[in-house]
Amino acid sequence: MFVILVYDFAQKRVGKALKISRKYLHWVQNSVLEGEISKANYTKLKLELEGLMDPDEDSVIFYTFRTLSYSKREELGVKKGGDENII
Amino acid sequence: MFVILVYDFAQKRVGKALKISRKYLHWVQNSVLEGEISKANYTKLKLELEGLMDPDEDSVIFYTFRTLSYSKREELGVKKGGDENII
Repeated sequence: MFVILVYDFAQKRVGKALKISRKYLHWVQNSVLEGEISKANYTKLKLELEGLMDPDEDSVIFYTFRTLSYSKREELGVKKGGDENII
Repeated sequence: MFVILVYDFAQKRVGKALKISRKYLHWVQNSVLEGEISKANYTKLKLELEGLMDPDEDSVIFYTFRTLSYSKREELGVKKGGDENII
């Protein structure tokens, strides 16, 4: 399945959140990752982020799609994220 | 159609970016909005954000979907965004 992950972590945890997420998905913007993921890895990713997060301070939204055949993606401006921009 | 909008604007423009985006979509996380939008309003939204942004510094990604029938949304942690959290 395809996942779009958007997160908002407190500064002290945001580096770790990115590190976890990048094991499974591609980094496409400051706090956004996306990619194909297996159901097993999706479960792992959720557990790892849940283990890291303070649920009173941090936020994660996962949009999951069985198919992307009816979707489009448009990007404006600078490309952020990606392997060249590790924080 | 349904749109997920994620942006990363420089600090001095981020308030305006949110203000523009909230005219058309629901604010669900710090830099994430989503919602149903007409094609005409989607075009307007893109033009307004393009007019605001510095393409060398800022980034916007739009994911658009004709249908959400094969998608799921999961949220962990605190709910950010929303009318009560205007910055």
